[in-house]
Amino acid sequence: MTEFAIVGGGVIGAGWSARLRVMGRDVRLFDPAPGAEARAEAALAKAQTAWEALTLAPLPAPGALHCASDLAAAVGGAGWVFEAVPERLEVKRALYAEIEAANETGVIASATSGFKPSVLQAAMARPGRLIVAHPFVPVYLIPLVELVAGEATDPGVIPRAAALFESLGMYPLPVRREIDAFIADRFLEAVWREALWLVKDGIATTAEIDAAIRMSFGLRWAQMGLFEGYRIAGGVGGMRHFLAQFGPALAWPWTRLTDVPELDAALVETIATQSDAQSGAMSISALEDLRDGNLVAILQGLKARGSGAGAVIAAHERRLVDAAGAAGSASVAGGAETDPGAPVETLRRAVPAGWTDYNGHMNEARYLQAFCDATDALMRRIGCDASYIAGGSSYFTAETHIQHLAEALAGEEIRVTTQVLSGAGKKLRLFHRMWRGAALLATGEHMLIHVDLDSRRASLPGPAVAAALGALAEAHAGLAFPEGAGRGVGAPR
Amino acid sequence: MTEFAIVGGGVIGAGWSARLRVMGRDVRLFDPAPGAEARAEAALAKAQTAWEALTLAPLPAPGALHCASDLAAAVGGAGWVFEAVPERLEVKRALYAEIEAANETGVIASATSGFKPSVLQAAMARPGRLIVAHPFVPVYLIPLVELVAGEATDPGVIPRAAALFESLGMYPLPVRREIDAFIADRFLEAVWREALWLVKDGIATTAEIDAAIRMSFGLRWAQMGLFEGYRIAGGVGGMRHFLAQFGPALAWPWTRLTDVPELDAALVETIATQSDAQSGAMSISALEDLRDGNLVAILQGLKARGSGAGAVIAAHERRLVDAAGAAGSASVAGGAETDPGAPVETLRRAVPAGWTDYNGHMNEARYLQAFCDATDALMRRIGCDASYIAGGSSYFTAETHIQHLAEALAGEEIRVTTQVLSGAGKKLRLFHRMWRGAALLATGEHMLIHVDLDSRRASLPGPAVAAALGALAEAHAGLAFPEGAGRGVGAPR
Repeated sequence: MTEFAIVGGGVIGAGWSARLRVMGRDVRLFDPAPGAEARAEAALAKAQTAWEALTLAPLPAPGALHCASDLAAAVGGAGWVFEAVPERLEVKRALYAEIEAANETGVIASATSGFKPSVLQAAMARPGRLIVAHPFVPVYLIPLVELVAGEATDPGVIPRAAALFESLGMYPLPVRREIDAFIADRFLEAVWREALWLVKDGIATTAEIDAAIRMSFGLRWAQMGLFEGYRIAGGVGGMRHFLAQFGPALAWPWTRLTDVPELDAALVETIATQSDAQSGAMSISALEDLRDGNLVAILQGLKARGSGAGAVIAAHERRLVDAAGAAGSASVAGGAETDPGAPVETLRRAVPAGWTDYNGHMNEARYLQAFCDATDALMRRIGCDASYIAGGSSYFTAETHIQHLAEALAGEEIRVTTQVLSGAGKKLRLFHRMWRGAALLATGEHMLIHVDLDSRRASLPGPAVAAALGALAEAHAGLAFPEGAGRGVGAPR
Repeated sequence: MTEFAIVGGGVIGAGWSARLRVMGRDVRLFDPAPGAEARAEAALAKAQTAWEALTLAPLPAPGALHCASDLAAAVGGAGWVFEAVPERLEVKRALYAEIEAANETGVIASATSGFKPSVLQAAMARPGRLIVAHPFVPVYLIPLVELVAGEATDPGVIPRAAALFESLGMYPLPVRREIDAFIADRFLEAVWREALWLVKDGIATTAEIDAAIRMSFGLRWAQMGLFEGYRIAGGVGGMRHFLAQFGPALAWPWTRLTDVPELDAALVETIATQSDAQSGAMSISALEDLRDGNLVAILQGLKARGSGAGAVIAAHERRLVDAAGAAGSASVAGGAETDPGAPVETLRRAVPAGWTDYNGHMNEARYLQAFCDATDALMRRIGCDASYIAGGSSYFTAETHIQHLAEALAGEEIRVTTQVLSGAGKKLRLFHRMWRGAALLATGEHMLIHVDLDSRRASLPGPAVAAALGALAEAHAGLAFPEGAGRGVGAPR
């Protein structure tokens, strides 16, 4: 049985399906409305583009999507049921009754932003399994998911959910006490109301408000939150000084948040017209691509620094690498196990569209990226994995020779096989072959040196790595010496 | 006379001085309190670190700091007087009277966040020159400055101020109508009040609130604002659909913003203690460095995409390059032109944080990416540019040899010089050297073949490309043959 069911295929439901599938989970989706399947596939495509740009870690093969023809077929037997239907209490309660008839044990996770879990679970026969798991758009890329238990929720459900979401590369935040709108949405709501007043009163247009946010506190909040930023503003006196200095301003009537502007036809027209002028030249899908590309760039920057949401991505990357290592002998390397003397299959993937260049084919730097991934797969195979590297040793590439023999185009499946030419002492000499079917596209010859990561100098590998590498080198000793190995680009003078 | 005077040397005044000086402007500062000069110098050091990491464009020599012993000496003759003294109306008004006695014509720009310009200028003899120029911490790095005119402000002052701040690499936002707290601070205030309630009510700790912000809407708001994000959430129906769908939720009582929590001793203690637990392990200066490094990483990512605040940085970078060219300083290409027989400089950039890998240094595939960019620069130089390629011809790389000689780290400036080893007929053999200062980091030797893009087969280049390439090859014919050129990774068998 598929472990994951999703009920509702709008922006949130499609986002959940993309997050689950890009992390290798199969999904059953139920949404009788037209277009749900197409939305889910479009979201997966965007999720794959984003994650392939975000990390060089090996992503699992995407999970399958099964569109169920009725609710019971979708949720029956599922361990997790994600509910993402419209925000109407009677709709949700009726749905839960149907789910309970088809599934007695699965956790039901509502994506609601409007109802407390105690309210949602009040009429359920087995309310202990209902929680709120509140994600943020785009669900496949934004890490936060707020987890909220209702009064009747069983104590073990939130920790189990937290572990699941962490395994999906997210940042689960258990909310201490049930409260309307939870945490992040309360802030969003406050800002939204204030923004409506500013537009209505003609203080600023939608574009000016967006610019004010992007050019100031948006940059701060992508990496530090509110309190840490204000702690800095307090100077060496820290938060106590800040509160003493700025506390009195709280009494000033700076916001109009006590009132809510009426969203009458005139205000809707004003906002929609300004929004058209601001962003109307781009389609929603183009705006999504712009947003996702920006998020990837921000997350990449933060990932390298281990800060903010970048720390979540970095941790998930290590998890993906480890998972690929554990699965290595079972899947990718499995073919090679049948013939220990054959080159090892170290990579199999499609060429992403973003890997091509102005000549219409895979860019030369992406060949080396693919060979790097293949080298990493071989590293994990010989035990030079994340924990070995954390222990202070690794291999660095000293020298590379690439021969380009044929072009690769976007969407084509490529495969790399790897032959160990020599592997003793501090040195490791590899020969990669990149294939498309039976066609040899490129070769990569690499000399790697084992190093001590503290001194950054050459050193001998640990005994387990040395033994695994030695065995592989011996198994490959009988293979023919590859065409082009040892060759230079041109004549030496 | 120095054009710029600053009165008040706290976080904002020191920030203004750092922004002005890092962009080459001399500054006179008046602040009788101890430590003002040290704060200003510390802020400049952080500003230089940040801007040197942010751009490879030539930064001007930093402006001088003159600490004046009295107010008149600071502001006399200045074209711009930045006021950044405490938020007390009587203090500011008394100060303006003193400034007016010493300076009759300079623009007075208040950094207030608490007073409307009409209130500030009400008692002035020449109120037409007073504006609010409201910046955000860190002033040397955050682009936004809100510009607000009072009732008595002369019409030409805001445009002049906008031009000044643009020349300092900022994003000036003229606010259409005077309003308390202007724009961004109204949002910050709304979020701050809500956050205080969440802590007071025990819903979330300061660390949880900060995480919720960093992991969700902070990432969105660093690149798109509120309205553009909600436009996407509205799907193909755009903003009108979004308003129809979510408008009703405005009536829900989701926030507690109608009340303000009393900042009594107990709440101050709760917040300060939580903040200590969250961030107390780092000094304020260390937190500032963390924040600035993160901002640089985010801005670099957005700069490469021309999005959000990154577009401001990119535009300022072009301005800096143009200014350096106009100033006649030895430009990058200029150095090479003076010696046509020297290798050509084909790349100069900082290593983005996203280019590093689990070994903590620039990933090997990024070396080839940098060499590809260098090859492209050489291609454009010999006339193999976008229009030539559109005409149906290009060069494809057939073979590559890379030697890694030293590591490169995130933020380091790298430079590539390129030597043409041979360039006649269908073949072009290049030798790239990658430098960090005088240290050779890597070499790349490449054989390229000229191809017909229709047949995808080797062909002769057009006469202009052939001539430009031939001239360059001849100019390089006298250079020494590079160490390692023609070499293979290991012995051929």
